[in-house]
Parts: sequence; structure tokens; C-alpha cells
Amino acid sequence: MSNPLVVIYSGGMDSFTLLHEALQTGRPVHALSFHYGQRHARELHCAEAVCLSLGVPHQVADIRAITPLLQGSALTGDLAVPEGGYQSATMQDTVVPNRNMVLLSLAIGHAVTLKADAVWYGAHGGDHAIYPDCRPAFVAAMDAVSRVANYDPVAVEAPYLHLSKQQILAKGLAMGLDYQHTWTCYNGRDKACGRCSACHERLQAFAGEGVSDPLPYEEQV
Amino acid sequence: MSNPLVVIYSGGMDSFTLLHEALQTGRPVHALSFHYGQRHARELHCAEAVCLSLGVPHQVADIRAITPLLQGSALTGDLAVPEGGYQSATMQDTVVPNRNMVLLSLAIGHAVTLKADAVWYGAHGGDHAIYPDCRPAFVAAMDAVSRVANYDPVAVEAPYLHLSKQQILAKGLAMGLDYQHTWTCYNGRDKACGRCSACHERLQAFAGEGVSDPLPYEEQV
Repeated sequence: MSNPLVVIYSGGMDSFTLLHEALQTGRPVHALSFHYGQRHARELHCAEAVCLSLGVPHQVADIRAITPLLQGSALTGDLAVPEGGYQSATMQDTVVPNRNMVLLSLAIGHAVTLKADAVWYGAHGGDHAIYPDCRPAFVAAMDAVSRVANYDPVAVEAPYLHLSKQQILAKGLAMGLDYQHTWTCYNGRDKACGRCSACHERLQAFAGEGVSDPLPYEEQV
Repeated sequence: MSNPLVVIYSGGMDSFTLLHEALQTGRPVHALSFHYGQRHARELHCAEAVCLSLGVPHQVADIRAITPLLQGSALTGDLAVPEGGYQSATMQDTVVPNRNMVLLSLAIGHAVTLKADAVWYGAHGGDHAIYPDCRPAFVAAMDAVSRVANYDPVAVEAPYLHLSKQQILAKGLAMGLDYQHTWTCYNGRDKACGRCSACHERLQAFAGEGVSDPLPYEEQV
């Protein structure tokens, strides 16, 4: 029997696609989500519902206690949520200090506990400009340290590292995935706002594929 | 003015010495301790008292919520505390999966928030045999990933990496430090037990220096 695999699953569209891709490997998959003090828990609720329906073991790690250590990001409530595209200057406000190293470290520890030998996460090409901890150099260095940090090495892999959000969506659509079971908007209202940077990127990906997004929006700019 | 420095300070004798060595650099020092579900909080209380008396800013990060992710260690309560020397087979039971990567990741994020450019931690030569995340290869790999994970690089340094516990103690004694303000025993009773592996190593270091340990012991084997 092949070794288990841990997938960091936020509930957003990239990790939703990644989770399904992991299941296609035939390996036992464990999904791991983090509640780190995001402005809202809608993505996490999506993640729970999806894992329940897929029968995938899922753990939501509540790490809000660490928020005081990692200040200064719009995603944890200190600053206003940026609007407009990823090229907007305020996108840097969504950088949580060292976020992915923290989340990956916990996921690697969880992998050791589960005797899994790899952690997958959904960093992709569109994140490189803004997020240092989604870049190829970071993923390679994280993989290197993860292989020497414990008795049993754990690989850190970002299978979508060189894909755009639209290319990831195309993969998911080809797998027949239904993206109404995902959440992307930085705001947590009934409908996606359609204005924040995350909605902007998501809508661009759907438009690029010529498919309409199944989620309801307040407006689409 | 030189950049601040974050010191991971458990309250034990190695990081107590390291904290004082950091202060001697003249750089602003921030101490960071973790409550990760240790069996007792005596070391943390030592850390608080020492930082208060030194006037060092000190944060205790309560990360007990992550304990369910990192199972399988005697230090977080699943297994019996090992006795005897570090060579004992049950010492592997004190390995918390991926502990130092988790703690260092949080410390690095904290450093970014504080605009500090280095994190120091007290890994030493005596830990190499048992703890993969105290070995030179791990420290070098952690340093490498930390330099690319954020906009501002943070160095990860273990100044005592090639020293024994006795050599660290010798440095501290030369600085005139009083080790009654530290705690080492795996148990959290009024007096140190004198039997657990941690007491064993501590007592060996003091004996090696020909100095008596100022802490009271239940017994010294």
C-alpha cells in the first residue's frame, strides 16, 4: 500500500482542485485546513463539507493563538481588504509574515504523525509576484529542510507551482469538478463581493476558460 | 541602531545562557517562549521571571491548539517520561514531530513583524544524536529557507550548535550567571527529580565543571 499524503486544503478553488488531483493518485489522502484568524470561516466550511462528502479524513487546526505573533496583514484583520487586481500595491497587505512556512511546518509535523511522506500545497504561478512563500525557491528550500527535520523525510510539493489560476481551473473542469463547493472572496458575506482582489482573479480565470462561475456575486466588475 | 534579534527562550539553562549572550551583543533582544503542551509550565515561569528582571520584552506564545497535530511524544503527554541518560532508547520518545521547524517558523514570522533580522535558538552538540532538528544540516537548511520566505530575510542561527551542554554552562558561569533561575527537569514538581534524562544531563554538566547546581533535587543519581 502506498504512503499517505497530506494536502493543505483551504477550501478555495486551487486547493479544492489539488485535493481531487491527490485522490486520483490512489494514495490515502488526509486533508488539513487552518483556522489562523482569517476574517471569516466560509472557506473552512466549504472544506469541511467537501471532505465529508468525499469521505476524506479532514482536520481543521485552530491556530488563532499564533495570530499575535504574525501581525500586519489584511487577511488577519489588521488592515483593509484590498480591491482591484493582484497588481495593486495594497496586495502586499495580504502577506501574513511567514505564513506558509508556519502552515507547512505544522503540516509536515502532522505528516510525520500520520506516517505520510509528502505534503502538497496549492502555491501557483499567479502568487509568485506577491508572495515570497509561494515561489519556486521557497518550495525547493522548504522541501530540503523537511527532508532532514525528522527521522522520516517528508517531501514538500506544490504541483501547481508553474500553473496559472486559469490553468488550474482548466484541470479541474476537465476532471468534472463543481466549483460551487469552493469559496474565494476575501469577504465572508452571503454572496462573493466580486470586487476584492481574490474575486477579481477568480472571475478572470473563469472568463478565460469561457465558463461562468457557479457562485453568486454581489456584482461582477 | 542595529537590528533586533529574536531569541527562542524555553527557560532552560541553554537558552538562558543564550539570552544573556544575545544581550551582550548590544542589539535589541526580544525573547519568545512557547507553551506547546509541555507537561508543566515551570520552565516558562522561569523565563517570565528572568525577562522581567532583565527588562527584556518577552512573549509567551500559547500554541497548545497545535498539539493534536503533533502527537507521539513524552514531552506532550502521550508517553512516559524517559529516565537515564540521553543514550537511552526511550529518549526518542521525547521527539515532538517537527517541533523545531514549527517553533522556528513562528519565531521567524515574529521576527518579520518586529523587523528583526535573526532568530537564535539553543540547539547544541549534545542534541544531535537524538534530535534531527538540532543538527547542523537542519540549522543550515532552516537558515536557507528563512532567507527566501519573506520580503526581508531572517537568519536562523544556533550559536551553540557545536558546543556541549557543559561548554555552554562554562560560558554562562564565566558570565557570572546564576542557574537557579532556570529549570530543566522533565517533571514539574517542587524539586527537580534528579532521575529523568534532562536532570541527568544537567547534573553531568555541573559535575564536569566541578560546580554544584544551585537547584534543589529530590535525589541525585
